Amino acid sequence: MTARVRVPATSSNLGAGFDCVGIAVDRWLTASVAIHASRSGVVIDRAGTLATLTLRPEQDLLVRGFRAACLATGKPVPGSVTINAVSEIPVGRGLGSSAAAIVAGVLLGDAALELGLSRERVTEIAAEIEGHPDNVAPALYGGAILSVRTPAGLRTVPLRVAPELVFLIAVPPFPSDTKAARAALPRTLPHSDAVLAGSRAAALVVGLATGDGDLLGAALNDVLHVPYRCARIPGYDAVVAAAQAAGAYGATLSGAGSAILAIAPRERAGAVGAALLAAWREAGIAADLLRCAEPVAGATVDRSPRESITNNAPLTIHHA
Amino acid sequence: MTARVRVPATSSNLGAGFDCVGIAVDRWLTASVAIHASRSGVVIDRAGTLATLTLRPEQDLLVRGFRAACLATGKPVPGSVTINAVSEIPVGRGLGSSAAAIVAGVLLGDAALELGLSRERVTEIAAEIEGHPDNVAPALYGGAILSVRTPAGLRTVPLRVAPELVFLIAVPPFPSDTKAARAALPRTLPHSDAVLAGSRAAALVVGLATGDGDLLGAALNDVLHVPYRCARIPGYDAVVAAAQAAGAYGATLSGAGSAILAIAPRERAGAVGAALLAAWREAGIAADLLRCAEPVAGATVDRSPRESITNNAPLTIHHA
Repeated sequence: MTARVRVPATSSNLGAGFDCVGIAVDRWLTASVAIHASRSGVVIDRAGTLATLTLRPEQDLLVRGFRAACLATGKPVPGSVTINAVSEIPVGRGLGSSAAAIVAGVLLGDAALELGLSRERVTEIAAEIEGHPDNVAPALYGGAILSVRTPAGLRTVPLRVAPELVFLIAVPPFPSDTKAARAALPRTLPHSDAVLAGSRAAALVVGLATGDGDLLGAALNDVLHVPYRCARIPGYDAVVAAAQAAGAYGATLSGAGSAILAIAPRERAGAVGAALLAAWREAGIAADLLRCAEPVAGATVDRSPRESITNNAPLTIHHA
Repeated sequence: MTARVRVPATSSNLGAGFDCVGIAVDRWLTASVAIHASRSGVVIDRAGTLATLTLRPEQDLLVRGFRAACLATGKPVPGSVTINAVSEIPVGRGLGSSAAAIVAGVLLGDAALELGLSRERVTEIAAEIEGHPDNVAPALYGGAILSVRTPAGLRTVPLRVAPELVFLIAVPPFPSDTKAARAALPRTLPHSDAVLAGSRAAALVVGLATGDGDLLGAALNDVLHVPYRCARIPGYDAVVAAAQAAGAYGATLSGAGSAILAIAPRERAGAVGAALLAAWREAGIAADLLRCAEPVAGATVDRSPRESITNNAPLTIHHA
């Protein structure tokens, strides 16, 4: 049995949506798995942006996702597994390369072993490995997703994004250390900042849905993590200011950085993208630009023995 | 010149919408003003729930709103003003009686003196007196309103409320001291609580719009003020638990209390309302029930010399 998956990049911590709102981004990790009858163990072959990783197979997030899918259903992990993965998602830039790998691993396990995981279970299993759901959910479902812990469990809800909005992400050549970025967060915040966090998260939902630039301007001015992390990103203030001067509603860190995401009306997207790159170039940094002008689909799975990957089909994992 | 206004009650701090989300409630303050040529000063006549107030005219919030409208436009305050006000809004219960009085005063000034204030200016003037916009805005506009400070100024945005949702408000006989309730708030919060505040405020917007009970359950579980205030409200925990047991998605303080608001699906509204009252009765407290099963309109203004008050007409204040 073989299976193939294709999982998008994601940008989480979308403005005031810290730890809860992320969007799918048009860069992809593709992976396939083959299960053999022998007992030769787990082999992982990494290419593309994953090629430089030196993790042992049991540390690899694809493998961890694959094993977690098995364990969650009580199925034994097969004795011989070969995973091939190739990614075009920049690693360590706040674009969800880890979440994409975990989701790919869980989906490969589910598809290849016919585990019958619901999408909700896939989200939960992947979010547990990742530690938070806000990259995992848009990687799985596509689009913009709000993830909230509720009394009934984790809920992931698609958010409407007004068609006139374009997301521009400038990706610098240097990574951000996610663990160090998380350690930079304070233990406490002024009550007034927490109040701002609430109103701006509400503004984010409405601003995304309506394209209201004033609301997005407030929503992208995060108080929960950016003030404590942005000093770690050379040129951050200049890049954000340049984006706004070029007509962006606002700009903020993508994930925990190092990439910077701006939201702009469609007619200003070209200017904003150019301004992001120019401001970083001014600081001696050659960044790449990702432009999301249309909603990006979520993960797709192909269980057939065909060699082709179904790129745009709806998610076809098996519901219990 | 005379004018009459009718302004609804409001419930603010709607769950995670602390200081930013409020809804109009179907209890009303009505007021009229007459401007005379003499110089006999300001006379305020209060009836209904306002009858027990012992404020001097210059402290009265209707008068302060009226004067603020004049001052904002550079018009002199007339030498002789008579304001008659009657309210059915409970005072000191977290139902926006202050905001209704302020909004009524500003609208009376605008209408009687033809000041030409936009609704945005009315909101700003009233919010400045009140100290926050989250009661003022739904009192003026009706429905559920998100108020957010943005780089372009205060924005007030209507929020969609799913038609299957019913708001039930139990009003106890004892008031809450708003200033003491505000003083009970801590200066700092754990970072993790601020993160919850953000995700739950986003969940509030989506939950209200879609009627999603899980999201509303999370959204009504506030971390910004209720934990610090609920001990001041006898029976709070029991009343909230009774509402949930009867089928409410959640319950929380209305404003800073003392009233408790629950949100329920329409088919459970009767049971939830009864449960709210029964739980408080168990604690020896005879509460009244307000039920908002339909969107409540905002303030209306009538500048004609007719004696009748236009109850359901759209707001007819004058735009510059």
